[in-house]
Amino acid sequence: MPDSQLTRRHVLAGSASALTAIGLASWTRGGAAQTAAAKPLPAYVAWKDPGAMIVHSSNTVETKRSAYGSSVVTPSDQLYIRNNLPPPGDDIVADRDAWQVAIGGVRNPRTLSVGELKTMGLETVAMVLQCSGNGRGFFPNKPSGTPWQVGAAGCVVWSGVPVRTVVEALGGVAGGMKYMTSTGGEKLPEGIDPKSVMVERSVPLDAMADALLAWELNDDPIPLAHGGPLRVIVPGYNGVNNVKYVKALAFTAEQSDAAIQKTGYRQSPPGSKGDPSQPSIWAMAPKSWINSPLPDGRPKAGLVQIAGVAFGGINAVKSVEVSTDGGKTWKQARFIGPDLGRYAWRPFVLAAKLERGNYTLTSRATDAQGIVQDENRIENTSGYINSSWRDHAVQVAVA
Amino acid sequence: MPDSQLTRRHVLAGSASALTAIGLASWTRGGAAQTAAAKPLPAYVAWKDPGAMIVHSSNTVETKRSAYGSSVVTPSDQLYIRNNLPPPGDDIVADRDAWQVAIGGVRNPRTLSVGELKTMGLETVAMVLQCSGNGRGFFPNKPSGTPWQVGAAGCVVWSGVPVRTVVEALGGVAGGMKYMTSTGGEKLPEGIDPKSVMVERSVPLDAMADALLAWELNDDPIPLAHGGPLRVIVPGYNGVNNVKYVKALAFTAEQSDAAIQKTGYRQSPPGSKGDPSQPSIWAMAPKSWINSPLPDGRPKAGLVQIAGVAFGGINAVKSVEVSTDGGKTWKQARFIGPDLGRYAWRPFVLAAKLERGNYTLTSRATDAQGIVQDENRIENTSGYINSSWRDHAVQVAVA
Repeated sequence: MPDSQLTRRHVLAGSASALTAIGLASWTRGGAAQTAAAKPLPAYVAWKDPGAMIVHSSNTVETKRSAYGSSVVTPSDQLYIRNNLPPPGDDIVADRDAWQVAIGGVRNPRTLSVGELKTMGLETVAMVLQCSGNGRGFFPNKPSGTPWQVGAAGCVVWSGVPVRTVVEALGGVAGGMKYMTSTGGEKLPEGIDPKSVMVERSVPLDAMADALLAWELNDDPIPLAHGGPLRVIVPGYNGVNNVKYVKALAFTAEQSDAAIQKTGYRQSPPGSKGDPSQPSIWAMAPKSWINSPLPDGRPKAGLVQIAGVAFGGINAVKSVEVSTDGGKTWKQARFIGPDLGRYAWRPFVLAAKLERGNYTLTSRATDAQGIVQDENRIENTSGYINSSWRDHAVQVAVA
Repeated sequence: MPDSQLTRRHVLAGSASALTAIGLASWTRGGAAQTAAAKPLPAYVAWKDPGAMIVHSSNTVETKRSAYGSSVVTPSDQLYIRNNLPPPGDDIVADRDAWQVAIGGVRNPRTLSVGELKTMGLETVAMVLQCSGNGRGFFPNKPSGTPWQVGAAGCVVWSGVPVRTVVEALGGVAGGMKYMTSTGGEKLPEGIDPKSVMVERSVPLDAMADALLAWELNDDPIPLAHGGPLRVIVPGYNGVNNVKYVKALAFTAEQSDAAIQKTGYRQSPPGSKGDPSQPSIWAMAPKSWINSPLPDGRPKAGLVQIAGVAFGGINAVKSVEVSTDGGKTWKQARFIGPDLGRYAWRPFVLAAKLERGNYTLTSRATDAQGIVQDENRIENTSGYINSSWRDHAVQVAVA
């Protein structure tokens, strides 16, 4: 069997070994990368704050739960990293304005440079960027993949040109299109069917309304590790849909037939493989968690400020409750600080008088549609979209 | 004459030389520190982004105008530095919760640790932090002091306990008090009258309403260089009033008699010295400026996105206009991105069709009270509070 077929078969079979050999272990959600103890930061993200991060692998780096504060925006140097393929070389950010994106599925298709996009419009959106697998670490059956706890998420601010502005300039979406399909500019390894590894994601056409072609993250040019020079931003959608190094954005009648869309990132019933009939991992659901106090915090009896973050996902978050008894009783918490809009998270606090003893602290968000955060995780093969408030509870001893 | 008297006399006379000798040149707004070419970052702020900063002196570091983006929050590693005294040793941030602040001028005065403050309450505020001398570099008569252009300002997010919460817990403000007076914890040089150099600022009692005792900046513990472990935050007030390393916060009947309050930071008529009868540099006024395009940007003829930031100071900003002809005609610009509240700035954009030629671009903010940004600077001895839209204009050649 030629190498290429061998490799491809391993990829399709979900074996990590072949991909490990070509440096793509994390694409298969490399289950072995769990010894997160104190690995150094990979070179391309050496600028991250080492004290705030948990390094799982070269392509998966998580924010420590204790590193989140109450100041809404997650600093870029503490934002998680999850790359489906190793990032391109940094030559692509040497002349950012020269990067090109082909816009297809519009009346007048065109390839535009970032420099041209910058003349067309400017908008800014704050949003939660969250990996589909965030919370996988709480699945007791240990699904294959990075065992993220809460830290594959951040609330960040993107600036760029609205996709709808670009589309209007190119005559509008062509007839019959149902999806917005974005293709990443990663270098694909040789000898493998490109469709088996390429990053190409389709989202419903509606998602175009608030989408950006973004060149700025948190007031800086987007770092290479986060998709610079150009990333498609689909607010309210799970991380994978926000394609990095975007080189093509097309309106399409069908979803991409790349594996990452067709069979990857599907909500597969336990034991089953990914399949186009299963829900794609698209819009995010309401979620919240507590960041303080944590088990290490050793709060003293008396008044304790219980603080965390809450978001609605595709909808705005409307309210959040906190329980100190593992979900038996709940109290309304108070949002603090500025409201950065529908797609952002909101820091919250509940002041509680706690006596000496053990407490199970958790929180439960409700979105503007009245949808309440899940009590229990939705079991699925890959350990995706865990927003269970039970799983996110912390045990805290008050001294 | 003993050294101490010599030194003090020089300080009172406003000579920089004595302070230079003890490493405090920047306190006197060290006029000589203008060769900003490419000085390295001082060690205690070596974590700043060197590409985004202009180093004036060890205690004065400015953000480049070209480094501002449209994503509202200024990253901490690009935030300006202006210290009135060298910061204390970093031992004070080794155990942040142990730092103490004495609360006086309340019914039940008490000294509280940061650890205790954290149990009392939590609030978050986004605000423009701006040095009183920002824009001094545009004064044609070159007043003594750091020649800041636009970069002694940033929009940042602070978290901490509201001062009013602490005051309520201590029985309320004692009778007859008119000011909130905060004292910094810098180590004072020996042999100098402490009042001549100590950082102690008084603000009107009303400013307490939205003030915080803050331990967090942009989702991180406040870096030492920015006043950690604890800083008093007085939203809407010029930078100097936000006292770093705050070790005492007292409600007082009179303003502090420290030089920095009594004679320093006064709006002094040109040629005159600071004097308590002159307005203290307190609340900020409406201001805005353009960050893109800049003279280096070389935009091409056609559609150009003219972008900048606008804020109201003590009031919310309501609107902002842009002129491409040096203020002869104006067009309403559009705010972009989330509104972070009364004290934050708002990025704005105006899409303009520009033909080949030379343009004088400027912007003019209006606050919620209808107060319009100054056309001309208010002349004053020290080059403070320059919000002149004429001074902030940029000359841009469209190719």
